Amino acid sequence: MEETRADKGLAFMLQYENVAWYDAGVVKILDRRVYPGRVEFVTCRTHVEVMQAIRDMVTQSAGPYTAAGMGMALAAWECREKPEAEQLAFLRQAAACIANARPTTKKRMEQVCTGCLAAAEQALQAGARVDEAIRAHVVRANNSRYSKVNEIAKYLVAMFPQRAAVMTQCFGETIVGMMLKEAKLAGKQLRLFCPETRPYFQGARLTATVCHDMGFDVTVITDNMPAFVMQREGIDVFTCAADAICLDGFVVNKVGTFQIAICANHFGIPTFVTGAPDAGHPTKDTVTIEMRDPAFTLQAMGVRTAAEGVKGYYPAFDLTPPHLISGIVTDRGVFSPFDLQRYFSSGGMGEYEVVV
Amino acid sequence: MEETRADKGLAFMLQYENVAWYDAGVVKILDRRVYPGRVEFVTCRTHVEVMQAIRDMVTQSAGPYTAAGMGMALAAWECREKPEAEQLAFLRQAAACIANARPTTKKRMEQVCTGCLAAAEQALQAGARVDEAIRAHVVRANNSRYSKVNEIAKYLVAMFPQRAAVMTQCFGETIVGMMLKEAKLAGKQLRLFCPETRPYFQGARLTATVCHDMGFDVTVITDNMPAFVMQREGIDVFTCAADAICLDGFVVNKVGTFQIAICANHFGIPTFVTGAPDAGHPTKDTVTIEMRDPAFTLQAMGVRTAAEGVKGYYPAFDLTPPHLISGIVTDRGVFSPFDLQRYFSSGGMGEYEVVV
Repeated sequence: MEETRADKGLAFMLQYENVAWYDAGVVKILDRRVYPGRVEFVTCRTHVEVMQAIRDMVTQSAGPYTAAGMGMALAAWECREKPEAEQLAFLRQAAACIANARPTTKKRMEQVCTGCLAAAEQALQAGARVDEAIRAHVVRANNSRYSKVNEIAKYLVAMFPQRAAVMTQCFGETIVGMMLKEAKLAGKQLRLFCPETRPYFQGARLTATVCHDMGFDVTVITDNMPAFVMQREGIDVFTCAADAICLDGFVVNKVGTFQIAICANHFGIPTFVTGAPDAGHPTKDTVTIEMRDPAFTLQAMGVRTAAEGVKGYYPAFDLTPPHLISGIVTDRGVFSPFDLQRYFSSGGMGEYEVVV
Repeated sequence: MEETRADKGLAFMLQYENVAWYDAGVVKILDRRVYPGRVEFVTCRTHVEVMQAIRDMVTQSAGPYTAAGMGMALAAWECREKPEAEQLAFLRQAAACIANARPTTKKRMEQVCTGCLAAAEQALQAGARVDEAIRAHVVRANNSRYSKVNEIAKYLVAMFPQRAAVMTQCFGETIVGMMLKEAKLAGKQLRLFCPETRPYFQGARLTATVCHDMGFDVTVITDNMPAFVMQREGIDVFTCAADAICLDGFVVNKVGTFQIAICANHFGIPTFVTGAPDAGHPTKDTVTIEMRDPAFTLQAMGVRTAAEGVKGYYPAFDLTPPHLISGIVTDRGVFSPFDLQRYFSSGGMGEYEVVV
């Protein structure tokens, strides 16, 4: 029974991995804005529609990178009748379009699209179908990523006590499922506390669902409760993924991460951030915090909360400084946030960096 | 035009003051759980129904104290046909019932009910109508409270810079309107930032509405944004009211206050708590933090957020320690949270203590 639930949870997690899928002229993206209340897909027939879907937060965390790759495959389909040179020009333009979907992730998006462009050039030289070649490249890159995230999960879980109360933030994508799988393998008992993560409720809707479906004790709290819960429930660890880990140790992640880290620091609770340092962000100064539609914070689950005339405010991310972070947990071990260059000195990078 | 909006705002504020009103066998309480989306009243025909309405959070902040007083007037109506001695016994039982509506406010509720019992005894001796006497007593006590809160507002606003970015928490009732009125009189320009205050959204629904209606620049943020906003928008002051101020300087207020105070402390921003020390709570150890229906955190504005099987968690309040509080702003000036006995040495108390 326990096994069945865990399997269901892992399947659920993998379902997220295939959130964006290209097939003969169409990209379908699972609409996480309404999941798990409703299971709906956004269908894109041009790469511009894929870019728009990413911009509209149809998918998040690692989802946009898969969606971007599948969008490049779709772009190859769009230009399949053109001469070879024009196809490459079209794909370069598509790459620029998709990479600009969201300011915070631009650098990593460019890496994804560059990888797809290389796959396209190889396919053109070999006379193979370009869209299929790009899709195969994205799947390979994702598989490589899964094994890296599995390594991260092992390093993370090794630091948990035998019985651990763990606080998360937002939805950390692959790392959540991998962390739970590793905790089961290591025989560690976790109690998970998930702040709901306004305004999109990713913590309540996504993280908590994965934890529950994998058979763990999981509690959703509102975003004003972390300090209370840290103190009252004896939280052992705060862990979150990151949208970008700058080389100076500043971490870009869903808004709220910063203040949870401040509270964890106040209580002497370690904060572990999972992921790989992002060579595209040598310092925090290269990060643009994305300010999204302010009206979105004036509603909850589609119901208006504030009166007309009141202003909203919506930074999608915040920046947590390195002195509040106990360790950056990577596929190559745990690094000090002040010593991230060491991560690179131990070997070359994969096709693109580890997004958890 | 500006004046009109301010007047509207003040009227709005005073509308809150009359949130619970007794009239010949009926207490009507404005249902703040749905306000301002809908203007609805809960009608109570027995004091037990009033107690239940308080327990169900139909009203909050100072509202329950007015409702309790009006509930005592209703109890007098209920027993009006009984002999005098039985009326008093009935009223004492009603007082015990109402005072137990919510654990956190029990002591102060007892003070309110004791005041009403004294008014009842006087009326019985004088052969006057008991329900009317209790209502008149509650109105008098409220008027006395308003003038005290006005004093608090003057001390608070005096500490604001000329142009101030002010962060609030939850809905501080009378003090919000009084603070804004005093800021206008003092010619100070405020930008207000209101965390929405999950799970009931009092910050978004109530505080922001008062600020807007009184003509101020007001922004609603989600509860995971205070740290970001403190840093990015240069917050000058964090201020909140309190459900109880213990004599050892610990402050009981809506959950989330604690972590905003931790963040304010992190950034060197002063935290001012408005209200009077509560002689009923000599230390924090006399405080019972009310754990409410956990399912309530699994929804927002009535829409389910988390999957079935996921647990909720709902502490109504948290405890902020004195070392995170810059000053307790009372009707007799600003006191160190470590020196609250001094408040009492400067004179006697009113009919019951200042609830802002």
